[in-house]
Amino acid sequence: MRYATYTANEELFYGAVTDKGMIALSPDFPHWPSLYDVIAAGALDQLETVANSKPATHTEFTYEMVMPNARRILCVGVNFPDRNAEYKDGSAQPKYMSLFPRFASGFTGHEQNLVRPPENHTLDYEGEVAIVIGKTGRRIPKDQAYDHIAALTLCNEGTIRDWVRHAKFNVTQGKNWDRSGSIGPWLVPFTNASQLDDARIVTRVNGEVRQDDTLNRMMFPIRREIEYISTFMTLQPGDIIVTGTPTGAGARFDPPKYLRPGDVVEIEVEGIGTLRNGIEDEIV
Amino acid sequence: MRYATYTANEELFYGAVTDKGMIALSPDFPHWPSLYDVIAAGALDQLETVANSKPATHTEFTYEMVMPNARRILCVGVNFPDRNAEYKDGSAQPKYMSLFPRFASGFTGHEQNLVRPPENHTLDYEGEVAIVIGKTGRRIPKDQAYDHIAALTLCNEGTIRDWVRHAKFNVTQGKNWDRSGSIGPWLVPFTNASQLDDARIVTRVNGEVRQDDTLNRMMFPIRREIEYISTFMTLQPGDIIVTGTPTGAGARFDPPKYLRPGDVVEIEVEGIGTLRNGIEDEIV
Repeated sequence: MRYATYTANEELFYGAVTDKGMIALSPDFPHWPSLYDVIAAGALDQLETVANSKPATHTEFTYEMVMPNARRILCVGVNFPDRNAEYKDGSAQPKYMSLFPRFASGFTGHEQNLVRPPENHTLDYEGEVAIVIGKTGRRIPKDQAYDHIAALTLCNEGTIRDWVRHAKFNVTQGKNWDRSGSIGPWLVPFTNASQLDDARIVTRVNGEVRQDDTLNRMMFPIRREIEYISTFMTLQPGDIIVTGTPTGAGARFDPPKYLRPGDVVEIEVEGIGTLRNGIEDEIV
Repeated sequence: MRYATYTANEELFYGAVTDKGMIALSPDFPHWPSLYDVIAAGALDQLETVANSKPATHTEFTYEMVMPNARRILCVGVNFPDRNAEYKDGSAQPKYMSLFPRFASGFTGHEQNLVRPPENHTLDYEGEVAIVIGKTGRRIPKDQAYDHIAALTLCNEGTIRDWVRHAKFNVTQGKNWDRSGSIGPWLVPFTNASQLDDARIVTRVNGEVRQDDTLNRMMFPIRREIEYISTFMTLQPGDIIVTGTPTGAGARFDPPKYLRPGDVVEIEVEGIGTLRNGIEDEIV
């Protein structure tokens, strides 16, 4: 079962994704107005029974960012060995992961365009698996980390590369442009460690493979991410961790291959899905 | 008029602060359950009429973080000339400001203790003025920036100093420990530019002055902060910008003067108030 947030007839819904269209579920759960509220209530599995009892309600719809009211989104930086080497500054594997928050406003949904602003054209892709926390926890041991994951999704952690280094520290202003990235297409309930441990992630631009790696090669595995982050902050249901991208972002090519209007980026993980976005120029 | 979020009899309220106690206002505005919702509705001035018609309702209460459900809190790094010099690395004034988000969970309220975790004892203070956005805007020109501010408050942007440099980039994990900082005591409506332009900020630890500066010496004035941040993201009502701290944080002394249980930190700005917090060790 897959759950998406979408717009139909200018109304926001969440529902189940099927081959015949969306099955609206939000009208059946008025006390949980968003998928964020469903996750906060620990109720993702309650959606399935209703979804199985209804036909598709919408065949025309637009995917939205999968949890548009997500309150805390934490992204992990450099997290695959080859990618670190690309920094070409002689640094060894770091002892701790790099972390930066992104606001939900920086993300759009599946099959919507990422926005390239007029101020700067170094829009770049980063394909990543994102996990959604389903259970509160502080100082979570690695061997219990997966118990705290409710669902999986994908992220194009789109970046205005030049602005990442505006300031000496902190990538904030390169990582938070309105609608510069995407999260989706949907949530897949997390039920089995192999959904992450055996996952392969591939990013394609206009059909050309740019990133291709397996999560078992992460420098900081997802279990460690949960352990480390929960050391300093209590993880809460609805928190999203964007787990880090493989080698092959556009900035690493010589000359760089930044995204342009007309390009199509696809991020695919078997068992989760394919997140697809075009690019458009912002008209100011 | 000053507006606070507080707990009384284990119930969360917002209300007006008076010499005789709190005047609960949230019961009068059930459609705006929090100060965040009041700000989002552009309705701060509507509270005043009700406040003027009621006596104090609570004389025993606990201040909470002034907007505990704030969704986006952006902090400005190094922002006073002397403080930059303290970095002692020969860097000139930077061209762009450093920015980093903090989650609301990292802050407690006035007269509550900041929490020093067992993992690390380098808890440090940073006194700052925080502004609350009241009007949506993107690419806001400097000369219109103040039109977008609804209210002012204070922030002790408390930091676990050692963890700020865990990763090569990004201060995230030193800046987001649960209840390591505070925002409050209350919101003061912003009605006049002089509330910011003529403001002096003083931080005291156990009565000893540690930070003492005037906002007109900021390297990146608040008007510029609003202009720059709104270049990449649409500022929304309820967003908080923590505008940067003067020289004199504990880490800059030799040896460093970190906070310890029993210490009391006060941050004072005339016309806004004094934000006061003790320190306690976390019991795990």
